[in-house]
Amino acid sequence: MLMEMKDFYDYAREISKLRSAMSLIAWDMRTKIPPKGVKDRSEVVGKLSRMAFEMATSPKAAEFVEYFNRPKIHDSLNEVDRRNVDLMTKYYRRQKSIPADKIEKFSILCSKGESIWQEARRESNFAKFQPILEEIVEYLKEFAELYGYEENRYDALLDEYEPSTTTKDVKNVIDGLKKDLVPFMQKIYKAKAPDDRILNGNFDKSSQEKLSVEVLKAMTYDFEGGRLDETAHPFTIGIGPGDVRITTKYDPRDLRPSFFGTMHEGGHALYEQGIAEEHQGTMVGMGASMGIHESQSRTWENMIGRSRAFWNFFYPTLVKIFPQYKDVSVEDFYKAINVVKPSLIRIEADEVTYNLHIVIRFEVEEALINDRVKVADLPELWNSKVKEYLGIEPSNDAEGVLQDVHWSGGQMGYFPSYMLGNIYAAQFFATAKKEIPNLEALISSGDLKTFREWQREKIHRHGALYDPKDLVMKVTGQPLTHKYFMDYITEKFSEIYGI
Amino acid sequence: MLMEMKDFYDYAREISKLRSAMSLIAWDMRTKIPPKGVKDRSEVVGKLSRMAFEMATSPKAAEFVEYFNRPKIHDSLNEVDRRNVDLMTKYYRRQKSIPADKIEKFSILCSKGESIWQEARRESNFAKFQPILEEIVEYLKEFAELYGYEENRYDALLDEYEPSTTTKDVKNVIDGLKKDLVPFMQKIYKAKAPDDRILNGNFDKSSQEKLSVEVLKAMTYDFEGGRLDETAHPFTIGIGPGDVRITTKYDPRDLRPSFFGTMHEGGHALYEQGIAEEHQGTMVGMGASMGIHESQSRTWENMIGRSRAFWNFFYPTLVKIFPQYKDVSVEDFYKAINVVKPSLIRIEADEVTYNLHIVIRFEVEEALINDRVKVADLPELWNSKVKEYLGIEPSNDAEGVLQDVHWSGGQMGYFPSYMLGNIYAAQFFATAKKEIPNLEALISSGDLKTFREWQREKIHRHGALYDPKDLVMKVTGQPLTHKYFMDYITEKFSEIYGI
Repeated sequence: MLMEMKDFYDYAREISKLRSAMSLIAWDMRTKIPPKGVKDRSEVVGKLSRMAFEMATSPKAAEFVEYFNRPKIHDSLNEVDRRNVDLMTKYYRRQKSIPADKIEKFSILCSKGESIWQEARRESNFAKFQPILEEIVEYLKEFAELYGYEENRYDALLDEYEPSTTTKDVKNVIDGLKKDLVPFMQKIYKAKAPDDRILNGNFDKSSQEKLSVEVLKAMTYDFEGGRLDETAHPFTIGIGPGDVRITTKYDPRDLRPSFFGTMHEGGHALYEQGIAEEHQGTMVGMGASMGIHESQSRTWENMIGRSRAFWNFFYPTLVKIFPQYKDVSVEDFYKAINVVKPSLIRIEADEVTYNLHIVIRFEVEEALINDRVKVADLPELWNSKVKEYLGIEPSNDAEGVLQDVHWSGGQMGYFPSYMLGNIYAAQFFATAKKEIPNLEALISSGDLKTFREWQREKIHRHGALYDPKDLVMKVTGQPLTHKYFMDYITEKFSEIYGI
Repeated sequence: MLMEMKDFYDYAREISKLRSAMSLIAWDMRTKIPPKGVKDRSEVVGKLSRMAFEMATSPKAAEFVEYFNRPKIHDSLNEVDRRNVDLMTKYYRRQKSIPADKIEKFSILCSKGESIWQEARRESNFAKFQPILEEIVEYLKEFAELYGYEENRYDALLDEYEPSTTTKDVKNVIDGLKKDLVPFMQKIYKAKAPDDRILNGNFDKSSQEKLSVEVLKAMTYDFEGGRLDETAHPFTIGIGPGDVRITTKYDPRDLRPSFFGTMHEGGHALYEQGIAEEHQGTMVGMGASMGIHESQSRTWENMIGRSRAFWNFFYPTLVKIFPQYKDVSVEDFYKAINVVKPSLIRIEADEVTYNLHIVIRFEVEEALINDRVKVADLPELWNSKVKEYLGIEPSNDAEGVLQDVHWSGGQMGYFPSYMLGNIYAAQFFATAKKEIPNLEALISSGDLKTFREWQREKIHRHGALYDPKDLVMKVTGQPLTHKYFMDYITEKFSEIYGI
């Protein structure tokens, strides 16, 4: 039988239509749905996701996978077609590697896990969470064996979020950070911190929203192909071609969550909006990995959003919307938004300490999956690592090992993407600075488009055409290294802290 | 083979989950979607609607229909189960009566029809619309033959919107209106109209929205199971159990479109929110017909919303939100919102003249479908009827035969539901007045819940358990008659106009 790539793409696009409906429902459930609608809508999601799963693992999908992987056929495909086939093959095999009833049991376990975790965290009671976490870890270990891996069982989990990246790769980065970042952080702790009390105040919601819209426009986010809404836990979602939506949340006493949150999500959205039209609805029509996606959001949130150049240009807009800043100098503001403080909570961490929170999680996860520690020992292990890397100690498990939702939902191997995002971001940004020599001056003048074009050309438009490793090599000319991140952090914070 | 009602219901609920996803997309496309997302999202709707159609006409559906219609089985079913089987059977047979390729061609024709109609209306150029309308009419005549009917080909079309209602039934009502309403209307035209200039002004959007929320709360609309948004062409949509959403639009110079529009949509929403839980997701879990649905919206918009009793209670809320009314008496306001003026445009018509707009449309449609007039003759026929029934003359086709979207989308047989809605509403309301003797006093005191409970008990909770004819008989004890509508109109407007 002869098969055509056209049929393959039509099939992929049919699946993507179901995913698009699911994405809209997900967006609605987190922004607009009335409380009484939630129960039934979850069942609608269940139905659609079963249908999408069935299509992706159907005999028809099996035929595509078999046919287009025949060496002669595979070799004859062009780069984009081949990549699409490879991604579908990988997805198909991953889905097929685990018996359907196990997937269903695990998914029920995880939704139970999330509600038990919520209770356990509220009561700061790890013992309550322990039994179900043990079950989850057992499943994940089994899944990792079924997926298969070469060196480290943890590789199989990592691969879902950061394809082509191994435990060894992550450890390389972490070794570098431990060697360079921890001592630098300690120097900062000893120095005098800038005054950030100017960031406290009253900020009404509609003005914060206006500011968010202004910064998204400055970032060249396309409002004709998206929108901004409010939510409890901000996210960005690509619902379909021409519809990439951002959400943010507003703290009436603090501008930072909405402002930097919007820039962060805006960074994700620029990525999605920049994927080439030809890839839309295909396997390539998404980000290269969780970590690459995170690199784009962190670039906008931190490297641009917390830079002096950006505020030189954007400060007047802030002052216009929040006149209380008219007597604060842009310099004082810049320093205030860059204060470094060790925090027990990952999501409140600054640029310098954030990665160390990930180091802790990675080391704990990797040891768990490889049977070097038991779930029961996690609280103690966690607290000792927090003390070792951050120099502070949790007073209870709610602000310690129980703080993140991920494990309760069955997500292990995900955390490293957050760290890798920061590392990719610094390496990409260093390259951009080389290739756009006057980049800082452009940003200072309000031209963010030149940089966005660079990102689009080098990263966004390709979608998932390249694995993260290949993309880093292609864009920066060398493999991933923590050095660019360290250079960026050292230069920026040495200056701010005068060290 | 033995089949279970449980399997039948599970199957129906699966289809309803696809419909729920489609409804959310429809809501989003009319309220929130960014412009660039529209094209792709239409394809998602296409995909889901093909899937729902396939399920509803599948061999499995055929088995259900065959099995549960076996006389012995059918007779043994309880009332609700039997009705569900009958409705699914009817739907199945209707879908199956037309070859799938004809349905698809017709649906393409209609979407082309809508855009040609838009152009034709903009240019007030009937000749541009004529050829495609001719094609649409040919299809509809063919479909009517395929569906089948007993007396009049138009019955087959009517049946889709107003099941169990025949052309003869509609004509009965119309004959009565022509005899009684037309002369009464002429008496009104000769009398002195109240002053409605107090309704012009500036009404900012957020205050109008506040007023809409207040009136919905007064109507006992459940915001925990719905929400209010802005749109261009207001509608109500039941997305799923616990999620019935309302939309409205705001005219900065006129309160009426948003206020009475909200009450109208609120009436539809109360119906949807009141359908018994046991029917949700089944064939019975929807309104009894378009006309019965419209009766609920018109009751709230007109019989309550434009009543003196309602404004006795609600006027202080209006004055609080729009203080410009503090020196206007509730009596003057009441009269102003009840001014009767002949209008060329149906959607701008008042309570007295509205039905005559429908009479025109019905007579034109029925003659077309039965080959008594040609499409080419419509403009002249239309204009002569407008003159005959309303005493005014369109100066062009845009404000004449081209004003409504329905025909361009293939909807003939739909218009009578608007009129029947008003007739049902009056007959139901007269019954409610008999059964709740102090109804007016209750409304005057702000108790709208007692009436809502009556509606829920008599009408809402049953969903589509009864055909409109049976429902009218059950609720009011007699067949549909235009007399209650005439009594209502005569009493109300004689008093307002002093005639």
